[in-house]
Amino acid sequence: MIAKAMEPFVFGDPGIGAMFDVVAKMVAEYGEENVYNFSIGNPSEPAPEEVKEAIKAILDEEPMKRIHGYNASSSGDAGARAAVAEHLNRLHGTAFTADNIMMTVGAAGGLNVLFKTILDPGTEVITFAPYFGDYNYYVENSGGTLKVVAPNAPTFQPDAAAMEELINENTRAVIINSPNNPTGVIYSEQSLKEIGEVLARKSAEYGYAIFLVADEPYRELAYDGKVVPYATKYYDNTIVAYSYSKSLSLPGDRIGYLVFPSEIEQFDAMKKAAECAIRMLGFINAPSLIQLAVEKCVNASTNIAAYDRNRKALYEGLKGLGYDCVYPDGAFYLWMKTPVEDDGEFAQMALKHRIVVVPGKAFGCPGYVRVAYCVPFEMIGNSMPAFKDLMTEIQDNY
Amino acid sequence: MIAKAMEPFVFGDPGIGAMFDVVAKMVAEYGEENVYNFSIGNPSEPAPEEVKEAIKAILDEEPMKRIHGYNASSSGDAGARAAVAEHLNRLHGTAFTADNIMMTVGAAGGLNVLFKTILDPGTEVITFAPYFGDYNYYVENSGGTLKVVAPNAPTFQPDAAAMEELINENTRAVIINSPNNPTGVIYSEQSLKEIGEVLARKSAEYGYAIFLVADEPYRELAYDGKVVPYATKYYDNTIVAYSYSKSLSLPGDRIGYLVFPSEIEQFDAMKKAAECAIRMLGFINAPSLIQLAVEKCVNASTNIAAYDRNRKALYEGLKGLGYDCVYPDGAFYLWMKTPVEDDGEFAQMALKHRIVVVPGKAFGCPGYVRVAYCVPFEMIGNSMPAFKDLMTEIQDNY
Repeated sequence: MIAKAMEPFVFGDPGIGAMFDVVAKMVAEYGEENVYNFSIGNPSEPAPEEVKEAIKAILDEEPMKRIHGYNASSSGDAGARAAVAEHLNRLHGTAFTADNIMMTVGAAGGLNVLFKTILDPGTEVITFAPYFGDYNYYVENSGGTLKVVAPNAPTFQPDAAAMEELINENTRAVIINSPNNPTGVIYSEQSLKEIGEVLARKSAEYGYAIFLVADEPYRELAYDGKVVPYATKYYDNTIVAYSYSKSLSLPGDRIGYLVFPSEIEQFDAMKKAAECAIRMLGFINAPSLIQLAVEKCVNASTNIAAYDRNRKALYEGLKGLGYDCVYPDGAFYLWMKTPVEDDGEFAQMALKHRIVVVPGKAFGCPGYVRVAYCVPFEMIGNSMPAFKDLMTEIQDNY
Repeated sequence: MIAKAMEPFVFGDPGIGAMFDVVAKMVAEYGEENVYNFSIGNPSEPAPEEVKEAIKAILDEEPMKRIHGYNASSSGDAGARAAVAEHLNRLHGTAFTADNIMMTVGAAGGLNVLFKTILDPGTEVITFAPYFGDYNYYVENSGGTLKVVAPNAPTFQPDAAAMEELINENTRAVIINSPNNPTGVIYSEQSLKEIGEVLARKSAEYGYAIFLVADEPYRELAYDGKVVPYATKYYDNTIVAYSYSKSLSLPGDRIGYLVFPSEIEQFDAMKKAAECAIRMLGFINAPSLIQLAVEKCVNASTNIAAYDRNRKALYEGLKGLGYDCVYPDGAFYLWMKTPVEDDGEFAQMALKHRIVVVPGKAFGCPGYVRVAYCVPFEMIGNSMPAFKDLMTEIQDNY
């Protein structure tokens, strides 16, 4: 029989899952181009051509054992790690070496390795709503509990003072996600400084480091020249989780990394524990061939301008129809206040107009929906009459 | 600070880890060719040429989203799963479809997904010593405890009657590994029938299925025409975990699969729970590009004849020197009874002769060592004088 712990996911309220079943039926009935599916965070832009050429060159030039063998270190290929470190140093003026980098099975794999490294049963991790819901699982996989700071509307910047109120002797880490999924907000330098100040003070009070975990898969997706501050600069005990799922459009390949700065408490022990954890959890090492592709493509980029064009078109279009949206500085999500109070009800109403969005309650923030604009550009224009009809329906009935 | 649960691995007895540090120093001092390292289960044969050609063709011919995108199903690419199912049907006369296959991040990833699917805190999984030690972690990651049936020397076939004594109301699964790491023994059809009979009887007694988990990364490495019985044929509630780490020499790429036969209890719920588990654990999906390589290479094979040659040379050589070894029918490991009682002491003595082997206690079976013969053929002949000196030293002193 299946685990009791898994029963709610299999037999419980299907929630968003049920919505996807409806979407699949609509696509079958009306055709994909007539369903405005803004629910998926799957990059719409292809991987850069450099990735293809890099993989072919690796297959022709590298020794077979380096391409397909176990890595000599559980932290990953030394060349790939050095390339990542140098790239970060070039961009952010940091001083990382290969020793500070652990290649991981995407950011999701990296976060699970990290939490196994620092969490025990009864410990807690804090995050800020709205937040990526799967953090709950990642923390619980290592026996911890996720504690959530209430949403800070309308800016959705993290509220360090509210965070401080949740810190206690069980707190081991705070996880932030910037540019943020689902809001598209970039956490400001001021926000990071305030978080760092509180964590430094509370760490001193408790006598051990409370880690700041910066989950940054959307780092490169920042618009209008906005800068995403590099979190390690504002607090010593910061660990970065990164993924190439968005920046190189490689979500299926499962490749990312963790940054363990040398300044963190118990650096050597942390590295050693993480190298045990990646094996104990069954990841073993990040996929080897794709590590080498990353080594060659650290400077490559997906077509960010395409997402930017989508962003502007969607924001302006919806604003013109009377929707109240947060102007997104990063990622590929638009965060919309629902014109009816219940975000679940709004998502159902939208579905009748063949518009698919994700209710904010999935991110710990009711009253909003996430509109993912990693979609074909045409879909945005094509969807506007449906959004208009939806607004008319709401205005007529509320 | 690091998790209390990780402290033993970081600050505790370094055990085999310390041995590897000594080995690294020896390699630096004497050169790699003068250290007879039989400790690593890393395939010595390269991946077949078909893999390289397959990957290049995929990069040129497949749509970018299929190569690098998230899989539409968490079970993996539908084409890859269909190819695996058809391959198994051809070989074993089974009737699997893509629905019975879940592509996983190696067998280690697959086992973690499976245990998350069926284990709760307080549950138990049974295995037979000697066994792959990391099973302990995989079971504990989902809150379970591994219970171990004592070694059944000298055949090392699994003892179904001894297994039955360990079954209780907390037992959820029995995991077997054949061809076996570390013994090289192939579990016989008779053994599988006996295990299946006991599990069917105990499942009926408790009113739910106790699963048989067949972990088979070494399936293709069987010699002298020996057949490895396909476990699903002997007990309905069998789930197979497979990896291409050995059969295609792709250990770094992290690719394997789980087989969920349609006959298992709660088939639909099990599949759905596993698809949740692979996401919750942070694997998300098996690496996408390598799934497609597997689809094209299901019939390819590593150079098994090379391992066979090593096997015979090592077994005959050691036998001639008076060592007592199990003649291995499969995998690439030789299982040797240590000529001194303590296998740890023997491994240390061997190290002085620059021979590296893994003590049996690491596999729950003291008094033996594992000699991995996935090594260059020359190393076997070159190592014989050292093995001879080692035996002479033992005979002179004991």
